[in-house]
Amino acid sequence: MVTQEVEYKPLSVREILKEMKDLSSLMIDLAYSAFLYNHKKLAEEVMRLEERVDYLGYLLGIQAALAARDREDAEQVSGILKVATAVDKISDAAADIANLVLLNISIHPSIHSAFKKTEEILGRVKVREESVLAGKTLEDLMLETRMGVDIIAIRREKIWILNPGKKVKLRSGDILIARGSVESIELLDKLSSGKVKELPEVTK
Amino acid sequence: MVTQEVEYKPLSVREILKEMKDLSSLMIDLAYSAFLYNHKKLAEEVMRLEERVDYLGYLLGIQAALAARDREDAEQVSGILKVATAVDKISDAAADIANLVLLNISIHPSIHSAFKKTEEILGRVKVREESVLAGKTLEDLMLETRMGVDIIAIRREKIWILNPGKKVKLRSGDILIARGSVESIELLDKLSSGKVKELPEVTK
Repeated sequence: MVTQEVEYKPLSVREILKEMKDLSSLMIDLAYSAFLYNHKKLAEEVMRLEERVDYLGYLLGIQAALAARDREDAEQVSGILKVATAVDKISDAAADIANLVLLNISIHPSIHSAFKKTEEILGRVKVREESVLAGKTLEDLMLETRMGVDIIAIRREKIWILNPGKKVKLRSGDILIARGSVESIELLDKLSSGKVKELPEVTK
Repeated sequence: MVTQEVEYKPLSVREILKEMKDLSSLMIDLAYSAFLYNHKKLAEEVMRLEERVDYLGYLLGIQAALAARDREDAEQVSGILKVATAVDKISDAAADIANLVLLNISIHPSIHSAFKKTEEILGRVKVREESVLAGKTLEDLMLETRMGVDIIAIRREKIWILNPGKKVKLRSGDILIARGSVESIELLDKLSSGKVKELPEVTK
């Protein structure tokens, strides 16, 4: 999980690699969803993630160079830098897909609607001050049990929290990236904007 | 899910895009795991997946070109082809990472061992004729419940079955890509090679 601290404490090579991988996987998911549903806001999140991946690539370069003391080290450093280059290529490719959406090049509506009925989608919602979600932890909210929604990432201004743990408390202004059916994402949108004030009952 | 039929019936643009996306996500996961654990067989699977993604990109080009009847169609086709190019870039990048492993450029053992203790890993095992797994469906086996192992893909010669459903019956010769703890993947390896003949009890 990426938490606020990441901005202030140095990350190990291992942590950087893991975060780059997780972010690039998330970017691909988001970029695809943005393209399939012509979802501009989602496409913009991909662009934001690309900045983060670029920054991590830069950090990795510094860490890796500092770590190289001898010839054997240097070979490993070179391997790590090649991985960083590959991840950068992945995040560029995801940004290319997102950019199509921002350029208004989207997919044929027939393909779009074929997706819409059957599959889980990714959504992006913003938690408003008046939302019932604000100030509650994911544990309190039990969104998965209540409405089949999985929060896969939270963006808090420039910080990304990936696969947030149940202790994470949602704040006004948080951007939630969630996976669920079309209906459940629509409900999440209403809950986060404050249009709907009551969470569905816990069934099961 | 990708089933055997995919080789024989034409895929829609939508199906091709979805499969390309799923395969490229899988490639990234596998490539990272291969790099972190210096796992050559896993790296080779990435190379095989790249061939499949290339083939799908070729199919997509044909389908998309056939679909273009007028100017508006053509714009959408061009969008789809750009997505295909991006996915191809992603799969190339994953192959770049896998190739480092095949070139014996791996990661520092200290990073490797830091991963090994705490996290889930991806493993690759082959089902032998004498294995208790051969001839059973995933539903029969309940590997997730029994030992915390999730089969995320099966390769049957050249066919990939992604996120296999519970009705899928394992066959001798199947390559399983599985996610789990180091211990559970080691057990899966013994079960699939036939060294261990009994599945662990269902607990819970």
